Parts: sequence; structure tokens; C-alpha cells
Amino acid sequence: MTAKSPVTLDPTEKIPPRERILAAARELFYRNGIRAVGVDAIAEAAGTNKMTLYRHFPSKDELVAEYLRQVAKGEAAAWERLQAQHPGDALAQLRAWLKDMSDHIISRDERGCPLANAAVELPEKDHPAKRVIEECKTAARAKVIALCRAAKLKEPELLADELNLMLEGARVTAQSVGIDGLGARLKRMSDALIAAHGPK
Amino acid sequence: MTAKSPVTLDPTEKIPPRERILAAARELFYRNGIRAVGVDAIAEAAGTNKMTLYRHFPSKDELVAEYLRQVAKGEAAAWERLQAQHPGDALAQLRAWLKDMSDHIISRDERGCPLANAAVELPEKDHPAKRVIEECKTAARAKVIALCRAAKLKEPELLADELNLMLEGARVTAQSVGIDGLGARLKRMSDALIAAHGPK
Repeated sequence: MTAKSPVTLDPTEKIPPRERILAAARELFYRNGIRAVGVDAIAEAAGTNKMTLYRHFPSKDELVAEYLRQVAKGEAAAWERLQAQHPGDALAQLRAWLKDMSDHIISRDERGCPLANAAVELPEKDHPAKRVIEECKTAARAKVIALCRAAKLKEPELLADELNLMLEGARVTAQSVGIDGLGARLKRMSDALIAAHGPK
Repeated sequence: MTAKSPVTLDPTEKIPPRERILAAARELFYRNGIRAVGVDAIAEAAGTNKMTLYRHFPSKDELVAEYLRQVAKGEAAAWERLQAQHPGDALAQLRAWLKDMSDHIISRDERGCPLANAAVELPEKDHPAKRVIEECKTAARAKVIALCRAAKLKEPELLADELNLMLEGARVTAQSVGIDGLGARLKRMSDALIAAHGPK
């Protein structure tokens, strides 16, 4: 059976096609934009074909929605890591979240928030991705409000909105203007906003 | 000459093709997204043809850049109107800008900032639109810093960044989550941020 070994050793063989398609979609959609990438390019990058892609995802819209569900799962996991790193310390979790997000925003290969970018690219109100985006963003806001409240900061909802919109705006600004000085400015703003809501 | 009157009365006849093409591009690019709209659709909406479009704009990329130059001109004109409405009163100009932007963000047919949306849709670093976006956003930031300084607010650069990113984030949030309660939250945040930088 030696003749078959190069095939059985092919790393793509070990990963089921559905996962390979999702991994390729995630990379291409994020890098180039959802509208700029067709299902042919995704199938090719995943080492499969369009027929297999459509067997797993009934349409490109469904593939986009599933790509964003994966992103949302990743964000939920990141929140759990933050909690595990600073158990019982809400203020430390809040500051670690701000630091992680800021580092992310000013990294060279950052292309903005995949969920916000998708909202910009998909104006159709009935697109299946819309609900995924809305649910994930709403959950993230609730999370930050809960942290601000647990950290006993004043007007936790207001502060959470200030921090959330600052980061959301910074991710867009990194795309439109660039990242020069942005990290330092985010740090100053975060500190000033938290200080203005100083512990009750 | 009565037989020709329906043609000479055609309103499209009075507007030169270049302007009709730009108006159609502006509407379609903003409404549906830059990637989602082809030059054929723009030529058709402008009541002309692709050949005429390419006579005025050598490529779709150049048409996109010119569309964003028009947006930038509109923003510059809006700043001038604010100055004219509140001559010599920087704080009133700043508050009026925040109010105008907030009203804009929560209007039903808002689709976000055309410049920021374009930055999301166009990852290509050498796209001719990139410079237009960067210049307009950089000029807007300088404008807000100058206003905060003229209004004698403390740490004007920090406050300008806080307000700018808040609005940029809100425009994205309106697309991804919706506008429920957003106007009231923007008002509270604006007031809180300005108060925290209260006049020196």
C-alpha cells in the first residue's frame, strides 16, 4: 500500500471537508471582504469543489452566517479565558479586555471586527448573518456592562457604552486612517474613562 | 419642434453625464456597498452607457475615489455651516456637531459613514480611495481637536479622540445592532465626556 501513502499523509485528508471549507472561508472573507470572495475561490482554497461546498452549506449566505457564528464562538471563548486569568476580579478582567482589544486593533494584519465588517458589507435586512451579528454584539455589550457593574464603577451602562464604542470606533479608524499612535491613545482614553467612573 | 419637446424636457438632458454618473454611483455605492455594484448598473441608473462612464472615469476604482472625494467635500461644507450657525462659539459648534452626527446616525436610512465603509470594503493598500479616506478622516480629527481647544476644554486631543471614536463606533453599531436607544445614549455620553473635560 506504499503507493497510497502520499495521499493518506496529505494533511487536508485528516480534516473533514466542512471544516476545511470554513477555515478557508474565514481566512478569505476576513482578508479580502465577503463580497470580494466567491464560493469557487473558497472551494479551491479548501482543496475541494463547489459541489461539496454546497452539500455542506446550501448557499454562500449560509456559509457567511456560519463563518460569523465561528467568530462569535471565538469571542465567547476569549471572554472565558479572561475570567479564568483574573478569577473574581472584575476590574482586572475589564482592564485585560481593554488591553487585549487594543493590542489586537493595532496589530499589522488586523482588518477590523469581522462582525462589524460583515454588517457594512451586507445591507440586506433579511440576510441570515444579521441575527448572528446582532446577537454577538448584544451579548458583548451585556458582558461589559456586567463587568463595569461588578467592578463597582459608577454608571456602569454609560461606561460600558463609552468603552465599547471607543473600541468599535478604533477598529474602524485603524482601517481608515491607520494605527499610528492609536495604542497609546486608547490606553489614555481607557484610563481616563475608568477614572471618571471611579469606584463608588 | 413640438415632436422633440419630450426629449428636450427630459430632466436628465440638463445634467451633464459625468454628474449623473457620480450621483448614481453615490446612491448605489452607499446603499448597496461598493463591491456589490458594478459599472453597468451605475451607467444604467445614470441613463447612460459603460463607454461614456469609462470616458469620464478610467476605472471603477477611480469612480470610487471620486465618489469619496464628493463625500469629503460634503463633510467640509457641513463644518462650514456649523461655523456659520454659531460664529465664534466653539463649544456651541462642538455640541451642534455632536447633535447633527447623532441625528444622522439614528436616522432610518443611514448606512454608516461612506468613508469608513469604503475602508472596510477596500483592503487593497494601493487603492486610490485610500488616500481620500485617510485625508478626510485626518482633517475631521484635526477639526474636532481645534474645536475642543478653542472651547477651552481640558486635554483637547484626548476629548476629541473620545468623541470621534464614540461617533465612529456608534455609526458601526447602528449597522450591526440597530439604533434602539442609541440617540439617548450618545447624548448622555457626549455630555459626560464634555463635563469630564470641563472648561479650564
